[in-house]
Amino acid sequence: MDRAHGAIKAFFAGKAYGVHSLVLEEPDKEAVRRWRRGQPLPLRKASVIARAARTNYVLTVGLEGGEVTQHDAAHISGYPMLTLEEMESVMYAPFSNADFNRTILSRGVDLADVACLPFSPGWFGEAENGRRLVKLECFTIKDTANFYMRPIEGVIVVTDVDTNQVVEIVEKGNHIPIPKAEGTDYRLDVANGAVIKLKSPVSIEQPNGPNFVIEEEHLVKWANWEFHLKPDPRAGVVISLAKVRDPETGAMRDVMYQGFSSELFVPYMDPEEAWYFKTYMDAGEYGFGLHALPLEPLNDCPRNAKYMDAVFAASDGTPYVRSNMICLFERYAGDAAWRHTENPFTGQMIREARPKISLVARMVASLANYDYVVDWEFHADGLINVKVSLTGIVIVKGTNYVNMNQVNEDGAELYGTLLSDNIVGVVHDHYINFYLDMDVDGSDNSFLNVHLQRAYTNGKSPRKSFMKVNKTVAKTEKDAQIKLKLTDPSEFHVINPNKKSRVGNPAGYKVVPAGTAASLLDPTDAPQMRNAFTNNQIWVTPYNRSERWSGGLFAYQSHGEDTLQVWSDRDRPIENKDIVLWYTLGFHHVPCQEDYPIMPTVSSGFDLKPVNFFLRNPVLRIAPYVESELPVCKTPASA
Amino acid sequence: MDRAHGAIKAFFAGKAYGVHSLVLEEPDKEAVRRWRRGQPLPLRKASVIARAARTNYVLTVGLEGGEVTQHDAAHISGYPMLTLEEMESVMYAPFSNADFNRTILSRGVDLADVACLPFSPGWFGEAENGRRLVKLECFTIKDTANFYMRPIEGVIVVTDVDTNQVVEIVEKGNHIPIPKAEGTDYRLDVANGAVIKLKSPVSIEQPNGPNFVIEEEHLVKWANWEFHLKPDPRAGVVISLAKVRDPETGAMRDVMYQGFSSELFVPYMDPEEAWYFKTYMDAGEYGFGLHALPLEPLNDCPRNAKYMDAVFAASDGTPYVRSNMICLFERYAGDAAWRHTENPFTGQMIREARPKISLVARMVASLANYDYVVDWEFHADGLINVKVSLTGIVIVKGTNYVNMNQVNEDGAELYGTLLSDNIVGVVHDHYINFYLDMDVDGSDNSFLNVHLQRAYTNGKSPRKSFMKVNKTVAKTEKDAQIKLKLTDPSEFHVINPNKKSRVGNPAGYKVVPAGTAASLLDPTDAPQMRNAFTNNQIWVTPYNRSERWSGGLFAYQSHGEDTLQVWSDRDRPIENKDIVLWYTLGFHHVPCQEDYPIMPTVSSGFDLKPVNFFLRNPVLRIAPYVESELPVCKTPASA
Repeated sequence: MDRAHGAIKAFFAGKAYGVHSLVLEEPDKEAVRRWRRGQPLPLRKASVIARAARTNYVLTVGLEGGEVTQHDAAHISGYPMLTLEEMESVMYAPFSNADFNRTILSRGVDLADVACLPFSPGWFGEAENGRRLVKLECFTIKDTANFYMRPIEGVIVVTDVDTNQVVEIVEKGNHIPIPKAEGTDYRLDVANGAVIKLKSPVSIEQPNGPNFVIEEEHLVKWANWEFHLKPDPRAGVVISLAKVRDPETGAMRDVMYQGFSSELFVPYMDPEEAWYFKTYMDAGEYGFGLHALPLEPLNDCPRNAKYMDAVFAASDGTPYVRSNMICLFERYAGDAAWRHTENPFTGQMIREARPKISLVARMVASLANYDYVVDWEFHADGLINVKVSLTGIVIVKGTNYVNMNQVNEDGAELYGTLLSDNIVGVVHDHYINFYLDMDVDGSDNSFLNVHLQRAYTNGKSPRKSFMKVNKTVAKTEKDAQIKLKLTDPSEFHVINPNKKSRVGNPAGYKVVPAGTAASLLDPTDAPQMRNAFTNNQIWVTPYNRSERWSGGLFAYQSHGEDTLQVWSDRDRPIENKDIVLWYTLGFHHVPCQEDYPIMPTVSSGFDLKPVNFFLRNPVLRIAPYVESELPVCKTPASA
Repeated sequence: MDRAHGAIKAFFAGKAYGVHSLVLEEPDKEAVRRWRRGQPLPLRKASVIARAARTNYVLTVGLEGGEVTQHDAAHISGYPMLTLEEMESVMYAPFSNADFNRTILSRGVDLADVACLPFSPGWFGEAENGRRLVKLECFTIKDTANFYMRPIEGVIVVTDVDTNQVVEIVEKGNHIPIPKAEGTDYRLDVANGAVIKLKSPVSIEQPNGPNFVIEEEHLVKWANWEFHLKPDPRAGVVISLAKVRDPETGAMRDVMYQGFSSELFVPYMDPEEAWYFKTYMDAGEYGFGLHALPLEPLNDCPRNAKYMDAVFAASDGTPYVRSNMICLFERYAGDAAWRHTENPFTGQMIREARPKISLVARMVASLANYDYVVDWEFHADGLINVKVSLTGIVIVKGTNYVNMNQVNEDGAELYGTLLSDNIVGVVHDHYINFYLDMDVDGSDNSFLNVHLQRAYTNGKSPRKSFMKVNKTVAKTEKDAQIKLKLTDPSEFHVINPNKKSRVGNPAGYKVVPAGTAASLLDPTDAPQMRNAFTNNQIWVTPYNRSERWSGGLFAYQSHGEDTLQVWSDRDRPIENKDIVLWYTLGFHHVPCQEDYPIMPTVSSGFDLKPVNFFLRNPVLRIAPYVESELPVCKTPASA
């Protein structure tokens, strides 16, 4: 990274520039697939997104020779992710504006107590064209660390982030009081009320150390799995080359070439002037990984966790270490991988159960108020569960109201829930789109819709009806634009039509949705067009190196012409091709009092589950726990 | 129970009888709610379902005086649950039939190797009217404990279970070979292949013992929760009087008067003669609790679990102990109850996270081949998660095929998946219906549909559209017959309109579905009518002591006239009444090779989650883990 830094500096030859992203360039997939340990590595390059003189630059930097290639980026709308340095420096822009200072003082707030945070403005047309903007929203930090609960409602400072010049001050809330600080702090040492502690702690213990190893810094090997784990400033965590051992042959078999969270969409549902623009794209606008801060050992991850650092580039291109960005741990939650008791009727009393142990790779992105916990969980039975947990602080709106009896019957004017005195939790959604380049036993795969539908017996059975399975292979992308329906269900398999099992079923993995949500915005509304990946829950595209970011390469103020919907609408062939599966996980969030002042974790996710991939249950021969092999534990001396 | 036994014996005065259920009669709800510790208990009664001279008896037995009251049961179709004794004795019925023995021998199977299991015949009309039947299906137990994988396909022995007389032998499969034993056994000491063992075990450890107590045998107190936990032969586990402590006042507040799994529906999707009838109602036909066998410590439940026994009645009315039927344990899976990192922009580096600890009450029902793990999980933040995990053995169909290349292109003739040589895993569904008598802060509650719908700004905002919340209180039962829809979503709250928070929101709990499935059978098909609780995912009825079993009191061969659908169609008022919420959890199961010979666990569930019930996050003041307070563990000496 140091070498790339030097080359970038030379490229810009003394001009001012900012590095918005500096990562290893994604190598050619075929070269990676052909490469074997011991062979020389393909030439490594850095992929750089920079900005200089109000222009986006997309550069490739050779890490051996330092040569820089510039790619055309002028035809794509939008801007790169904000850098942390930009965010920090633009926070001070409002204070050099006399109108702003007057406004704040008129609200009875001391300027020394004000913190303004830069929020992306979205894109709604003319107002956001031609310049890179942030909309700063301000809070008083007086008497609480949870300043989010003390908004200076209605004040929006529109600022040019290339120049730090204030463009416009919106002032709509001067009749709205600043909500009180009391009861908002969440810190252990500051918040009110007695600490609640269970007298006997329960812990995940593994005194003999982990069963996984991390080789060459990023190659994780655990039980029957191996995969490459890489921090990424935009995606957060990138899983590559995930392979699982076949218990029949001992061979490692390809499952997924690459998987990561490609984009997030967080639209708030308040159309008023200080709120309508809040339609965040947390990966493309802010960097899901860039905001993944160090984890808190023992509380973010259990005691048996190991931690991994990230190396990211600062905006001048210099590398720095983000410590403890990822944790890895083996999870045992007291569940069984499988079990059966044979009823003693048949003369045999059989009771067999096996513990379910998995490996979790976790990061937490703190995007200002919100915290997203992303878990990639690998199970010994070949299943990968991806889970997203939402916690942190709900962003709130100041209001005059202190009781619902002051509000019109339907409460629609609040656009949310009255959470506490003068505080409304505004209704919003969260969507997380995952890029899942499945390579099931090799790269040429097909997408199989296993449709379940009602069938009639037409008098041939005492039964009138049953449920029939109807399998269809998707020929082109539009066949694989899938909206989930409870009453018209399918299973969705990625199969390798060229790899059949002994009994003739193609090897496959299915994506198994759990609880999710679908966007209700109008499909022609700008935020929805920019985040059109939420138009369907499942998509399949042919592998294309340039199609990684489902909301567009330059998501910030993008116009929506570089999205998964646009790519997929080309309707390219996807049968027996190298294909990418995309899944969008959604949450509707109508806040409630329990989310105040900090929100209990809410989770959902999806599974990637082997289906006719193994010849039989791959954990059939897992060992049960026996007392004499478990750790010997005692109460700590301090208890 | 001994006293009830004596009274029943006296009632039948020397006649032959069978006790199909003997439990404490559900006491009057108002009397329970009024009762305070220290007052005398209401008179206790037993509720008895018995059968004598081909007649169903519903009796109430006074446990003090021994007086027996007989209730009219003649007007309800169907029969009580099979007793274990009936199941065991009817297994031998086929062997006294010469045709049966000839058939078995003609298939090349030694009679000494045959086990026949009694399956309920469903109800399809004339053939099942007027007598109580089982359909026995037979397997060879030779060379494997997993005889389910060795069906003697097509042989169905229809037997009168009141007399153990064979009524009819169906013989449709004489061209189908018996699948091989090799590779089917799952027992640790018998199955082939090396045992897979992680060298460093990971365990949930709590050397100081549990944080819960069990008072008066059934009253569980843990953290901020208390509830009554009772084994039940039909429902499995019954949770009663669940209350949670309000951290603001210290008061215990009512959440749920009673919750249990009311009925299961497991229709197989093969219309052929030996399969069409497989439309099981596992609670009402077999007894979900009756088949909950002793748990395997360390593997069914973690090391820190405690166990609870059940006392059930044998078919002669005598009590017996079912040991270790329920386990209780505190779960910590390495997750955070809440967390937030404040980005250091604002000058404060804050990182706060709290461990998520919960209490699980678990039972496992083994209904012949299948195992259902039912977890009631109580979280400190007030959430109750109900989870059902499916494992055990998939019931299979023998076939001539050994490879899919022998099968017609669409494979429809299989009605399932070729899992191994000569074995088809037949497509089927699982539905579990839960009775949830919510009493949120008292018994008078309403059901609130919080509908999320697209709204337009009509030019008043740069945004075109947003998502609006529209709340409707259900007036009558039909307003609360809910089909879930991803693109037309709602939240579903049980609120107490009489209990408002300081800011004026009614106290509520919402039911939060996760992954689920809906029945695709024709609504007028007999199995669907009998299990009409699967017509909707959510229902709300007014509390009625006699409406507990959603598939009918006598589910066995029932005609479907005593179901949740019928009750709900009365369309009674449910606003501000004592109401019962019903939720049906569903799974479609298209078997895959990985389910052979024993099925890796698959889970789903739903949450009951406080919504404006607490004034703020109730776990705000939970303590973080600190190293010095966690257990001190070492590797066992044997490692």
